[in-house]
Amino acid sequence: MNTKAYGAHAGDKPLEPMRITRRAPGAHDVQIDIAYCGVCHSDIHQVRSEWAGTLFPCVPGHEIVGRVSAVGRHVSAFEVGDLVGVGCIVDSCKHCEECDAGLENYCDGMVGTYNSPTPDEPGWTLGGYSQRIVVHERYALAIRHPETQLAAVAPLLCAGITTYSPLRHWNAGPGKKVGIVGIGGLGHMGIKLAHAMGACVVAFTTSGSKREAAKALGADEVIVSRNTEEMAAHSKSFDFILDTVAAPHDLEAFLGLLKRDGAMTLVGAPATPHPSPNVFNLISRRRSLAGSMIGGIPETQEMLDFCARNGIVADIELIRADQINEAYERMLKSDIRYRFVIDVATLAD
Amino acid sequence: MNTKAYGAHAGDKPLEPMRITRRAPGAHDVQIDIAYCGVCHSDIHQVRSEWAGTLFPCVPGHEIVGRVSAVGRHVSAFEVGDLVGVGCIVDSCKHCEECDAGLENYCDGMVGTYNSPTPDEPGWTLGGYSQRIVVHERYALAIRHPETQLAAVAPLLCAGITTYSPLRHWNAGPGKKVGIVGIGGLGHMGIKLAHAMGACVVAFTTSGSKREAAKALGADEVIVSRNTEEMAAHSKSFDFILDTVAAPHDLEAFLGLLKRDGAMTLVGAPATPHPSPNVFNLISRRRSLAGSMIGGIPETQEMLDFCARNGIVADIELIRADQINEAYERMLKSDIRYRFVIDVATLAD
Repeated sequence: MNTKAYGAHAGDKPLEPMRITRRAPGAHDVQIDIAYCGVCHSDIHQVRSEWAGTLFPCVPGHEIVGRVSAVGRHVSAFEVGDLVGVGCIVDSCKHCEECDAGLENYCDGMVGTYNSPTPDEPGWTLGGYSQRIVVHERYALAIRHPETQLAAVAPLLCAGITTYSPLRHWNAGPGKKVGIVGIGGLGHMGIKLAHAMGACVVAFTTSGSKREAAKALGADEVIVSRNTEEMAAHSKSFDFILDTVAAPHDLEAFLGLLKRDGAMTLVGAPATPHPSPNVFNLISRRRSLAGSMIGGIPETQEMLDFCARNGIVADIELIRADQINEAYERMLKSDIRYRFVIDVATLAD
Repeated sequence: MNTKAYGAHAGDKPLEPMRITRRAPGAHDVQIDIAYCGVCHSDIHQVRSEWAGTLFPCVPGHEIVGRVSAVGRHVSAFEVGDLVGVGCIVDSCKHCEECDAGLENYCDGMVGTYNSPTPDEPGWTLGGYSQRIVVHERYALAIRHPETQLAAVAPLLCAGITTYSPLRHWNAGPGKKVGIVGIGGLGHMGIKLAHAMGACVVAFTTSGSKREAAKALGADEVIVSRNTEEMAAHSKSFDFILDTVAAPHDLEAFLGLLKRDGAMTLVGAPATPHPSPNVFNLISRRRSLAGSMIGGIPETQEMLDFCARNGIVADIELIRADQINEAYERMLKSDIRYRFVIDVATLAD
């Protein structure tokens, strides 16, 4: 099945319209007519060959929402017409310890939504900047938000679960003081989610100009991380800090804000290493520095349902497919509050 | 009360005999006639001014065992003649969240056994390379080992609790695969303790020559960490790794050996930073890099009782007080299996 897409033929070329092929749905597959696709920083890194191993043509996009347009004969959980989402994962081995635990995100055989090996043409997966996608039902998520919110639901599939999973794992909730470092695509979701979980939320930003915006998202307090006095006032007070900043930066200043047994978790991998953290900051309070990657499929469904119940969506700016190159440039300047979403209908034009 | 001790008058001077003053026991104090004192790497760093803030004269020593020789009128837990120990902590604020939780080691007001502020003469604490010490009963530990083992019990007060506490906190036990990095004063205790807790214990060493010795301590397997094939065979298999090496070294190779949700905990603070760990190693399996410092007083008692029940002591080489400078030189060459202990009776000569 031939479908329109937007992608790049080389790392130094802009994205442009192209045609790609999707497989016919197998017995356990769900075919989805994509309505919207969020735009993640990973998309830029991958399509520009800033990470190793990009295969071209490359069609990015792993914040996919749309409607089921066909199902395989063994599919029972979805029907034609259902609103569904697909995130960063379209396949995994399905039988390892991680898959059995519903943590497909940590499976060695995890197949990413784009640029991962697949028997389908052309030999690697092609993402959501396209009109249609076919995935095994295990990796499709039910969307229970009102359809009017569908575009703003798209970023939950990556930015939402990537922040929800560590917040849950490290027990964000009532009585807990939680910091969110960085107020971007991931960070703005982190603030909304931690607030909805009942935690006391403190947002960290390098830019005082985001103070009011962060409060509007649900932050109880906002700290300008360059202000050493503001930082010092929160010394040894945090249960958990979620660091969404992928650029190399000083981790030390944040580790010192954790209580005894507190943890700081990174969800972004910097292209060059962060300055090495001071071990004494870890030892002196039994603190942890951890990492977390996306979330498993059952937890992604739990997150979507949590967001639907709590009226949570991303703050987005809807764009036409032909605005994607310009959107990338604006993302690199942090000129977006907080996520671009492609209106996939514009691919048909 | 005047007592003999061994200490230094400056960072660049050898240790020599000196006389120091101990306070008369107050209502809650225990006076201890010291029998043996273990020799910790921290002693060298502190007495040689390699860490900031050493005050002179400096009398090191925080692995103290001996016999109660007097008690204050409100002391109920100890009697004259009891075998007791004192570790790294001789006081704390006694009313903060950490003290209330029995984690005096994380109290901001923790008073170290040497080189910490005290109202006693000369204004800072003086350690266990001395004939006598007086401490508040809260910081004295009951020793239930046979008296014949007393010298080998001394290192439990620092090396023992520093490894026991993180092993317990990160749930070393049956069904868990635990790595111990470094086979020295701390590491050899880590192997013995993890083995006694029922974990599968793998020791890491840079020196193949320690292979048999590590097995004799209780390691189920020994890996030479420079052998990349041996390391690769254990990829993603450890629940917990306790890293006892204080010298700056590559953490990466060990982080990659942790399972999903595994933790690696550092108990040594390097003088210069470790190479910055690869964040992707943390993110890709939700791993943690943590730190741990000594242990609280109740847990130290628990550790001593665990060791008494399981017949665990340190492997030691007993020295005369006047051999301490030579012992330091041998420690710096790792020429000791695994802990020097001063026979304090030799101070009287």
